[in-house]
Amino acid sequence: MMSGWDSEKMIGLAERYGTPLYVYDLAIVREKIRKIREHIHPAVCLFYSLKANPNTTLVRKIYETGTNLEICSLYELKVAQMAGCSPKHMLYLGPGKSRQEIRQIIDCGIRYVVAESMQELEVINQVAEETGKSVQVGVRINPAVAVKGARLQMGGAARQFGIDEQQFDEMAALIRRLPRIRLTGIHTYHGTRILSAQVIAENIAYILQFADRVIERHRLTLDYVGVGGGMGVAYFDGESDLDIARLGHLSQRSIEAFAAKHKGTSILMESGRYIVAEAGMYLAKVLYTKVSQDVHFAITNGGTHHHMAAGGMGNAFRKNFPVRAFVPERQQVHRYHVSGPLCTPNDLIAKHVSLPQLQPGDIIGIARSGAYGLTASPVLFLSHALPREVLLDGGHELIVRERDEYMVPAVRLVM
Amino acid sequence: MMSGWDSEKMIGLAERYGTPLYVYDLAIVREKIRKIREHIHPAVCLFYSLKANPNTTLVRKIYETGTNLEICSLYELKVAQMAGCSPKHMLYLGPGKSRQEIRQIIDCGIRYVVAESMQELEVINQVAEETGKSVQVGVRINPAVAVKGARLQMGGAARQFGIDEQQFDEMAALIRRLPRIRLTGIHTYHGTRILSAQVIAENIAYILQFADRVIERHRLTLDYVGVGGGMGVAYFDGESDLDIARLGHLSQRSIEAFAAKHKGTSILMESGRYIVAEAGMYLAKVLYTKVSQDVHFAITNGGTHHHMAAGGMGNAFRKNFPVRAFVPERQQVHRYHVSGPLCTPNDLIAKHVSLPQLQPGDIIGIARSGAYGLTASPVLFLSHALPREVLLDGGHELIVRERDEYMVPAVRLVM
Repeated sequence: MMSGWDSEKMIGLAERYGTPLYVYDLAIVREKIRKIREHIHPAVCLFYSLKANPNTTLVRKIYETGTNLEICSLYELKVAQMAGCSPKHMLYLGPGKSRQEIRQIIDCGIRYVVAESMQELEVINQVAEETGKSVQVGVRINPAVAVKGARLQMGGAARQFGIDEQQFDEMAALIRRLPRIRLTGIHTYHGTRILSAQVIAENIAYILQFADRVIERHRLTLDYVGVGGGMGVAYFDGESDLDIARLGHLSQRSIEAFAAKHKGTSILMESGRYIVAEAGMYLAKVLYTKVSQDVHFAITNGGTHHHMAAGGMGNAFRKNFPVRAFVPERQQVHRYHVSGPLCTPNDLIAKHVSLPQLQPGDIIGIARSGAYGLTASPVLFLSHALPREVLLDGGHELIVRERDEYMVPAVRLVM
Repeated sequence: MMSGWDSEKMIGLAERYGTPLYVYDLAIVREKIRKIREHIHPAVCLFYSLKANPNTTLVRKIYETGTNLEICSLYELKVAQMAGCSPKHMLYLGPGKSRQEIRQIIDCGIRYVVAESMQELEVINQVAEETGKSVQVGVRINPAVAVKGARLQMGGAARQFGIDEQQFDEMAALIRRLPRIRLTGIHTYHGTRILSAQVIAENIAYILQFADRVIERHRLTLDYVGVGGGMGVAYFDGESDLDIARLGHLSQRSIEAFAAKHKGTSILMESGRYIVAEAGMYLAKVLYTKVSQDVHFAITNGGTHHHMAAGGMGNAFRKNFPVRAFVPERQQVHRYHVSGPLCTPNDLIAKHVSLPQLQPGDIIGIARSGAYGLTASPVLFLSHALPREVLLDGGHELIVRERDEYMVPAVRLVM
């Protein structure tokens, strides 16, 4: 799947569109979605999480594969609408929804709306009252048991998300007192960046068993149960990609059992990173090379303001994303620190990576950069321009975000 | 100095301008600049580092106090120009300057232009050749000795910045071969976030002694020597603010000696954080409160997309910025996790902080947020709106950045 990223093609893109540049290959996105469909039980409805990469055209192309959309803010809602998404295919989450947001969610008629606290349920009821409508609401449950093997845990501990599993009965009683709300869903999210098929399968089984219990105990008729996502991709040395076939195999029985017993209840699963991470490449041009205290540096025009994850921020110990040099065969290899143009020592996008000897004008790439790349980075820091984003669709190259001349006044968006 | 942040005033601002909101108090900015002037030797020319907070109006007000401007990108140059800054008062740094950038720097006639590598010197010479001009250039020197006590070191190790001290002779020989370049300055930056007056004073003495040696050895006539900055402010428990009077006292002798011997050579010092950090307050409104697994949560409409530093990203162990609750007297106090609206568990702006019992509608503030706040944060992440920024100038309240309705298409800027 990495064969698409050959040097000639990448150098051509860099020349045509300039650097720094984000490139996304739709063939890889479609292949990842196809794999999920092939291996995961057909009762599961797949949702793409816009937060991983909210580029409008990319989102539209993903929606056109039949994938639903998970959104978490009003602008993500707007993007989903621009992508042509029906409210029947939208899942709306978020621990801090404002009244204005709730009002728009209700007006828009989004099918899967998940509340994250008792107070939010009361606010939704109030806003629904104002609109004269009734609202079908799901609740996010913070599971009592923590998942092992997640890089970022979201459940099983004190969390800003959802309602503790232990508070379910109290919550159900509250909803019975709220005239405008009907409980139609349960949603859970254990963690993210999970590379173990077994851990994800155990999560799914745990959630479906929990849902089965509360459905029985409270005699619920649920439209849906969300089992979260968390399917990771390998970025760093020592990590191996998730075995999706094995995940399909290990989760088959619990999903089959739940689906057979609760025929009207959809099983929702989200994925952002797994769908788009491998499809993205961040290209930058070497501006200068030098040796400082015996360390080789390549200073590029791309940096952590566009790709904070490659800078290792947020990890206690920095690890390198996969780095490629798109250069002709060279005799010498050095271990490089690759840095960006920012006036801060943290602007290192790779440290101690072996690369062919670099020279000004060379193109380097950070692979697996399609998820949590540009929009998860401090793009205003040091006030450099936002880069172009180009989407490869078969033989076509679509500019899906125009480059800024400078930073700020307009963060332009091409639709 | 904190007396300006009383509850009534903050609640009023939150009501008038909405939340989330950044508030900057110019009285504090001016007081910090006054303190530097009062205590630091008068031979020192002070430069404000735009990267700390590039808000145009704030920058203009700082420039109007007689402070020069340090800039690191073309957009920062544009901001400095909009602020009315003369090119004679601009210092331009950056390890990855593009040809286009160098061209504009030359066209603009910036007085203090600092090159960071041998290759950059050659590119500057080429671009100068194209314009038919000669350029006065400073060089950034990476000192051979590391500073102790800096939170973020920039010298004394392998760095993307500058030319190693040990390479000075080679660099000087290169410059003699470049017809369009004249060496007129030396610049050094040891580290940042230094709270020890003694460490900063030792840095200054080290740099001035180094400059004195190379001036003698190479018979240079220098327009300036930059001694960097690095003056920190205390954010976290156990930290104490820098004693600026003591810094003035400890650095007096080395500055006096250098200034007396090299009368035509200016001594430049930069400060971003020290000037603006304490002047900023980030205000957010509590949307929901809840208890999850015995932990009290306050979920606000402000988060790490606006204030990543408060989220502790980049620190191996999270520490809390000073958090204030602008609420009437309340009987109960709880230990809170304060989180934002983002669908990510990392969106915590305070953890285990003791605050009066909070309820929806309450205003909380993150103090000391004037530096490396909004523009150093991943503002596009989860696609929420950018907040307003309001500048307090005596009795006046100026909106210096308008709020977005949604995020993206326009990151608007009010000038």
